[in-house]
Amino acid sequence: MPNLSHSTIAILGIGLIGGSIAKALKENAPRATLIGYDIKEEALELALAEGVIDRTGDLKKCLEPADIVILALPPILIAKMIPTVCALINETAVITDVASVKNIISDSLKETPEDFQARFVLGHPIAGSERSGYTASNKALFYNRKVILSASDLNIESSISAVRELWQLAGAKVLELDRKSHDKILAATSHLPHLLAYALVEVLAEQEEADDIFLYAAGGFADVSRLASSDPGMWSDIFVSNAAETDRALDFYIKKLIELKEIVKAENRLELLGRFKAAKSVRDSFIQKHFKNGD
Amino acid sequence: MPNLSHSTIAILGIGLIGGSIAKALKENAPRATLIGYDIKEEALELALAEGVIDRTGDLKKCLEPADIVILALPPILIAKMIPTVCALINETAVITDVASVKNIISDSLKETPEDFQARFVLGHPIAGSERSGYTASNKALFYNRKVILSASDLNIESSISAVRELWQLAGAKVLELDRKSHDKILAATSHLPHLLAYALVEVLAEQEEADDIFLYAAGGFADVSRLASSDPGMWSDIFVSNAAETDRALDFYIKKLIELKEIVKAENRLELLGRFKAAKSVRDSFIQKHFKNGD
Repeated sequence: MPNLSHSTIAILGIGLIGGSIAKALKENAPRATLIGYDIKEEALELALAEGVIDRTGDLKKCLEPADIVILALPPILIAKMIPTVCALINETAVITDVASVKNIISDSLKETPEDFQARFVLGHPIAGSERSGYTASNKALFYNRKVILSASDLNIESSISAVRELWQLAGAKVLELDRKSHDKILAATSHLPHLLAYALVEVLAEQEEADDIFLYAAGGFADVSRLASSDPGMWSDIFVSNAAETDRALDFYIKKLIELKEIVKAENRLELLGRFKAAKSVRDSFIQKHFKNGD
Repeated sequence: MPNLSHSTIAILGIGLIGGSIAKALKENAPRATLIGYDIKEEALELALAEGVIDRTGDLKKCLEPADIVILALPPILIAKMIPTVCALINETAVITDVASVKNIISDSLKETPEDFQARFVLGHPIAGSERSGYTASNKALFYNRKVILSASDLNIESSISAVRELWQLAGAKVLELDRKSHDKILAATSHLPHLLAYALVEVLAEQEEADDIFLYAAGGFADVSRLASSDPGMWSDIFVSNAAETDRALDFYIKKLIELKEIVKAENRLELLGRFKAAKSVRDSFIQKHFKNGD
């Protein structure tokens, strides 16, 4: 593969994530050739008009010349596309994805030749927005954000380096985590919070006083529910793909809520005070350590 | 009572809420005399030095000359202070509070003479921050935000008008809601989301992989957990004071989570997709209607 900054990069899916990658690369690797593919014609036309991608074409035309291929699609679609990608890319191309859940991608990869698996490096940028689509993309989306690579035993070092360099060009900090831990940890940190947000909106909307409820809701509700504005298609994919781990995280959470409910019911102020202090300290230190200057 | 903009206003508690009221009034009613009271000496000294309050003194000195008294303290403390306030204020003073839960304030008021109850107008600004204390206060905290007045049958119109005018001076939009509906609705829109945030932080902190979990957590977790950084003292007060309504809201929520958990477990993508679409539409329309230009 040529030096990444002079290479040909194919991005399949130029929505929020793919569009943001293209914009970041166009800024930081202006000599790279960016090929965009999407089923949404308007997004492609806009990206071409804005000079964010250099060209487009059918899948074959997009994949064949690529030194590196980024699958920036919803998780289930990535899994489904893998055989096609495998059939069309050239034999030295490096491939990566952006899926929030790795097991289905990994399962799909197992059906491909080892030589392809060696060059496919699982990746997941821990960045996003409740908005979706190309118009929501921006070149700074990954700046100072974390990207998790879940390299497998089959991966060759040069492919891992290429994907690492790609994300560093986009301004991200690259971390590594095996795929099983990835799915378990993301179930707790990301998938669970999304489900809590959806559940909160449903509960409020179902109350008799729903109109009043939304009239009097404030910033707290707006924040806690933000994730419920995320892309429904992608998130139903994610929950179905990571059902076992999400189920496990939900089990913990429901038990915790039942426990807290009993304490509220017993009006045990001291117990609540102690727990709230501990939770505040954990959350404050999380923000201090991992989020300052990062968002 | 003299015209509000020339009156003497006593603020008991100059933390986030009381300090923000003082700053907003100093800006918009510069001829009013602002008297501050707090047990935190440093906060008082800072507010005096910054010219945010005009003077301070013991409770008697603060309350006696006041035309209007604002109890900007945690809910249980407001309830406890009511007899003292009743004993020390002059017989025409108007009183209001800022508590997020109204039943304990109302219960405490029932022990006071009807003449005092007539001039005490329950109030609750739907604005806040996970930060607390005078240093977190700012003059724009209430700008374009809602304040709920829960006037009682005993309230006289002139007192209600004075409190309404007070909040309008601070830039807020004043709404009215009876106190029982207030506590029920706030249990769903505000108290429940706070408990969800505390529970999420506890669940994550208790996982074996807690260190990794916080390392890989992103903006979604930061948002959903923001409320867990709120003042533990005030929030343990609120839950204990509104235990029955919070318990009811938690019941609904836990049932909803169990329902969603079953759908995730069954990997029913279509059902999830339909629900997520509906929730997104409700939440997007909430933000559109009630939050644009308001935050």
